[in-house]
Order: sequence, then structure tokens, then C-alpha cells
Amino acid sequence: MSSRIEADYLLETPGDVRRVADFMAGEQSSGTFLPVPGETPELKARAAAQVTRLEILDDDLRAPSLPSARLAAPSDGKYRRALLTLSWPLSTLGPSLPNLLATIAGNLFELKPVTGLRLLDVRLPHEFADAYPGPRSGVEGTRRLAGVHGRPLIGTIIKPSVGLGPQETADVVDELCRAGIDFIKDDELQADGPACPFDRRVEAVMRVIDRHADRTGRKTMYAFNLTGDLDQMRRRHDTLLKHGATCMMASLNSVGLVGMIELARFGQLPIHAHRNGWGYLTRHPALGWSYIAWQKIWRLAGADHMHVNGIGNKFAEEDESCIASARECLTPMFADKPCTVMPVFSSAQTAQQAPATYQGLGSTNLIVTAGGGIMAHPLGAAAGVAALQEAWQAALEGVPLAEFARTRPNLQRALEMTA
Amino acid sequence: MSSRIEADYLLETPGDVRRVADFMAGEQSSGTFLPVPGETPELKARAAAQVTRLEILDDDLRAPSLPSARLAAPSDGKYRRALLTLSWPLSTLGPSLPNLLATIAGNLFELKPVTGLRLLDVRLPHEFADAYPGPRSGVEGTRRLAGVHGRPLIGTIIKPSVGLGPQETADVVDELCRAGIDFIKDDELQADGPACPFDRRVEAVMRVIDRHADRTGRKTMYAFNLTGDLDQMRRRHDTLLKHGATCMMASLNSVGLVGMIELARFGQLPIHAHRNGWGYLTRHPALGWSYIAWQKIWRLAGADHMHVNGIGNKFAEEDESCIASARECLTPMFADKPCTVMPVFSSAQTAQQAPATYQGLGSTNLIVTAGGGIMAHPLGAAAGVAALQEAWQAALEGVPLAEFARTRPNLQRALEMTA
Repeated sequence: MSSRIEADYLLETPGDVRRVADFMAGEQSSGTFLPVPGETPELKARAAAQVTRLEILDDDLRAPSLPSARLAAPSDGKYRRALLTLSWPLSTLGPSLPNLLATIAGNLFELKPVTGLRLLDVRLPHEFADAYPGPRSGVEGTRRLAGVHGRPLIGTIIKPSVGLGPQETADVVDELCRAGIDFIKDDELQADGPACPFDRRVEAVMRVIDRHADRTGRKTMYAFNLTGDLDQMRRRHDTLLKHGATCMMASLNSVGLVGMIELARFGQLPIHAHRNGWGYLTRHPALGWSYIAWQKIWRLAGADHMHVNGIGNKFAEEDESCIASARECLTPMFADKPCTVMPVFSSAQTAQQAPATYQGLGSTNLIVTAGGGIMAHPLGAAAGVAALQEAWQAALEGVPLAEFARTRPNLQRALEMTA
Repeated sequence: MSSRIEADYLLETPGDVRRVADFMAGEQSSGTFLPVPGETPELKARAAAQVTRLEILDDDLRAPSLPSARLAAPSDGKYRRALLTLSWPLSTLGPSLPNLLATIAGNLFELKPVTGLRLLDVRLPHEFADAYPGPRSGVEGTRRLAGVHGRPLIGTIIKPSVGLGPQETADVVDELCRAGIDFIKDDELQADGPACPFDRRVEAVMRVIDRHADRTGRKTMYAFNLTGDLDQMRRRHDTLLKHGATCMMASLNSVGLVGMIELARFGQLPIHAHRNGWGYLTRHPALGWSYIAWQKIWRLAGADHMHVNGIGNKFAEEDESCIASARECLTPMFADKPCTVMPVFSSAQTAQQAPATYQGLGSTNLIVTAGGGIMAHPLGAAAGVAALQEAWQAALEGVPLAEFARTRPNLQRALEMTA
């Protein structure tokens, strides 16, 4: 098997970058901190990771990004940053996503000479495409189930995030369906606690959604958060099928990779993948994961919708980074198996962000979820939905929001609320 | 249900720490970035997270630890650090580990006013002890299966880490068993790739281990790395039982929480839990997870052995931090369900570290694994095992290593090798 896996890193280290790169390649394959007798030239040729690219970006940093015990200060006082690509033979691990993680994102973040390390991207041989399902529904399946074409799915999150009971949740859904919303999701904090049991919530909500669908011919897609242990997720999935639900939500960092792979294998519905916890994986610019690398793992595992934050969000992320993440979700992973997924824009989204979001993404293939942006509209949630729909209509038609709002009071009030 | 969950954080922010703490509590329970109509006082009393402790540690930091887009520089130029405790009603989520993660370690790491956030500890109500199995084998079960009492399990990692075939691996095991080793583990990079298939490795290795056990009456414990998709792990577990293996290894960050919970439920053997990838969760001191909080999740989920790095390791971690991690593994979680696990010391471990490790931990309940420290011994692996055993004997007897080594050439050479 001659296929190889490649991963790109931002590396920061004092001293000789080449030596550290070779050390990393050794640690992540056949080597260790002392030469061992069995690591013959033949074995190295067969099993060793290789440094296939090393490009110095900066060789004059005066302080390390991350502390390292027992690392002597460099004699020249300088820390260097480089783009590094490591390459592994597939034959060591086979096309296994869990073992891929241990290989490309294992111990190497902890190595003593490393004062910064961030996984930027990963390229996988086609054997991975053969071994994993990828998104079952993706963009097209989601659109078909939601009955929305040629424009984004306009959605919201149930607010208050937690505290409503099943019937109170259904009452909010009733108001939103009446307003013509496309998509609703549970908050990630709401799953199956005693205060709002999953089964009773599904039953109450789907009764409302079905009633509106009888009228409109279109089922509002509700992403029920079934995050839990495996047997719980199986049982909750059965409940969703029984009640005709069209989407399920899971928190990626809560269920982990094996949980997501299983969910994608037994699940019959699009998986709305929530990335809460993403901050601890990415928040320092010289540590952890870039979204570009991270989302590939989950798309291959079977996620259908991936959260990407949103423009003008309430979080720490730059707008450019959100847009790059979203564009990546729509970029094919393999020529014959694109694994493209719906990017989900959220976090303080309101009518305001529609034009810049559309301009940045260059596609209508997205889900936009506004929580407070809809629920806190001064004229009520229905007006909030209408305002968001109008804002996206303006964006698609290339008309400035303020102009479009002149004859549309819901949009007008929404813009005033968030001015 | 009046039980509550508590989590402690290190928080860094400019401006008013109290306001940010309240914002965090709101975001992680019933609130959002705008007031929504449904968040009534009754609902808040029932569902809102509470700030139960806020203690300023430093109010004069001149630069933020983490960048935050759109966060204005503070008017007084100061960033503040505080110890913060948040508390949640259990009734919102129920005793669910996956949903606990979304609650205590979800979106809050990304919030705009947060320039540093680290989860320091978590305290769980007893309902969690009732809902999860905890370690099946733990310290006692591991000792019983390995036949080692009153001293640490002396172990090693197969080196070269990858590249050996099944029979070559068994040949190394043969040499180690002959030397009287207690414990051997696969490298985390070695699982079930085409170059060293799991089933053939288990068969070849267990044949050797059984042969030595016939002679010694004691089975060397081998932790086979079964990390993979769930069906693969089930199949590999069956292979282990069939061949009489006594331990299985899984990479925590590869399988994730649902994977570990499942493994603990169907698995009949101690779980050797490898923490590779831990660096990206913890490496920045103002971001991510402390080991104290993190290991509680995995112990409750069912891990039996937890990696804690080691004194004088090849990584970036301070010795004090390693020892604190290891001591925590032996600290009961619940009075009637301690969930204590074997701490595993590894990373550049040699004879040198035995006295300081024993002194720091204050217990013989540990597994010490030396890879290069054994395999690279100039007199061979058998001498490496003997040297490590002698070093621990010296530590337990309180005799300085150099003195103990005078009449023990294997230890003498080991100390020279790593001097």
C-alpha cells in the first residue's frame, strides 16, 4: 500500500527547526527519545513519518507562545515559526479515523522543544473515503426534507435555552411555524433532563409541526438534541422516527468520534453537528486545531450540518475565519465523494448580517440560526422570522438592507433593535 | 431534584469580572445575548446557572492571554484573573456525562469578553455515580490480573513504536517476559493497520505470554491497543478474550466519551486509557482543561489506567503537575464509589526517576512504563527491566540509587546511560 497521509502544521520552536521537525516525525512513527536497536534502515523506510515540507515563516520571535518546562532559553534568544508538513504511510494505521487522530494529533503537541503547534490541514488518501460513509443527507438531503430551495434555511434556537417544559417548547414552536420558519434547533444545553424529557418534547413539538405541515405542505425541520450515551441516542433516534422528525442534533465534543461514527451508521436523519467546546481546541492561535483540519474528520464520520459561528458573532472569532470555515464545508473532500455539508451560521445572528454572509460565502447553501435575533424582536417571534427572511431576500437581490426595510416594518424594527 | 453540578474556572477578562461571570452563567443556562420574553423570574430560579464563587487573583495584567476579535481594549488597560465557580441544577441535563461536557465545557471558552478560561475542577452530585459504572478493575483488579502486589507494575512500550510485524512484536515480548516484566503496552500509533494486524499480533504475543506464564505462574499484562470504530473495538475485544489477554488500551481523544462509555460497558478487561492529544487541551495555562477536571470524566466513564506523563519527561509538563495528576487518580471521587484508577507514568522514564516518583506519589499504586529506557539499555532489554526493578526496589527501601547500583551492574549501566 503506497498511499500516504499528510498533515500541515504551524510549528514554533527555538533552535534548529529542521531538527525539531525530524524529532516530531520520529516520535509520531518508529522513533523514540533514545535510539533503539530494532529501528533498522529497512523498518524506517517502511514505517517512518517523513518531513515533506518545511518553510520558515518567522525566525525572530522574542518570546515563546507556550511555556515548556525544562526547555532552556535559546542561545540566540529567538523562537522560529515554520509551516511543516508530515507524511505517514497508510499501512501503519489503515484508514481509521480514531487512529488517524492519535497519529496526526497525538503526543506531538506536548513535546518539550515545541513552543507552539497548530494542526492546519490534513489530506487523506482515498481509502478513507471508502471506509467511512460521509454525510448521508448533506446539502441536498437537507433541502429535500426541509422543502427549501434556492435560498438559505432560516432558522432559530429555542429560547430560553433551557427551562421550558415540553408543552412550553411546543408553544414556542407553534408561534415560529405560524411565522413560516424553516428550521428550529434545541439549544445544546437541552437534551433529556428531567425538566424537559426528550420523548415528551419530541411528541409535543412534532404534533405542532405536523399540524402546520398539513396546512403548508412543508415540515419545519427541527433538530432535536439527542446527545447522550449510545443506547440513549439509539432510543431517542427511534423516538424521532416514530414521530416523523426530520433532523437530529449531536454535540461533537460530547459524543466524540466513535459516537458520531455510530450515530451516522444507525441514524436515518440528517445530523446537525454542534461544535460547542470548540473554543478550547482552537482559541490560542499557536495551539490546537484549525477548523479546516477539524471539520474534515467530522464530515467523513457523517455529520450533515456543521456549525461555523457567524459574522459579527458574540464570540472571539474573526469574521474572516467564520467565512473560511463555511466555505470549506462546501469544498469537496474527494472528487468522487465530496462530503459537502451545510454550514450553520449562529451566535448573535440577526437581519444585519445577511448581506455580508451571502457575499462572503458566495452560496445559498447554508442554515442561519438566530436565537435572540428572532425571539427578542419587539413585535414578537413571527416578526423576527419575517425580518430575517426579508433580510436574506434583500441580500440575494443585492438591495441594501436599509432600502429594503423602508416598506417592511418587521425588518425595519429588527435593524433598529440591533443598530 | 435539588442536586447541583459545580465547576471551577480560571477566568481572565478585561473590565468588570462580576458582569462577565454573570454573562457566562446566563449563556450556559437560560439566557442569551438579548433579553428574551420567556426568561421569567420563575424560570430563572428553576433553570439558571449561578455564580457561587468569584475571587480576584490578579487585577493588573497588561495583556490578554488570548486574542478576541471585536473586544475593545479596556479603558484602564487592565486584564483581570479570577477563580470562578458556576453551579447548575442537575434537573436541566440529568446525570449524563456527554451533556455535562456541553454544559461545563461548551461555548463559554469562545465568549468575546473572555481572554482566558481554564476548567480547573468539577464536582458532581451522586446521581452521576449511580448512572455510570466507573472503573471495573481499577487498582485491585489490575493487581489481581497482573499478579503484582506491594510494588509498582514495571512496564514498557513496544519499540520501535510502529514497523514491527506480529511475530517481530512477539519476539520482543519474549525477551521482555524472560526478563520478568509485569506490563507491556502497544504504542498508541499501533492499532490494526495492514502492517501489523491486531488479531495476528494478539495471537503471536499471547502465545509467548502464555508460555512464560506456564513457567512463572504469572501472566504478563499486555495492553493491546484496540482503538477504532465501535464494531472494530467489539471484534478486537472478542479476540482478546479468546486468546486470554488481560488488558485493552484505548486512546481517549480518539474514541471520545461515547466510545469509552461503550467500551467500559461491554468490555471485560481493564481499560488502559491513553491520553495522546492531551497537549492541545491543556498546553496553554489560561485555556482548556486541567487534568484534575478532565480525569474525573474518564474515571466515571470507566477507564482503569490513566496516563499522567512522568517526572523528567520528554514533554513540556512540569514535574509538580505530573505528580498532582497522579495523586488525583488515587483520590476517591465519591465516598461510596471511589473510582480510583492506576496512574500510568510514561515519557522518557528510566531508572533515574524512581525515587522522586515514589516520593511524590506516596503510593506503590502505579504503572511505570519505560520504552527507550528499557529497550535501549546497552546490555539489552532484559538488563533494562532488571535495572528498573532494582531502581524501584531502592526507592521503596529508601536507599540512594547510586549506592544500590554499586553491586548491581544492570542498574549501574542504566544510570550511566541516562546520566
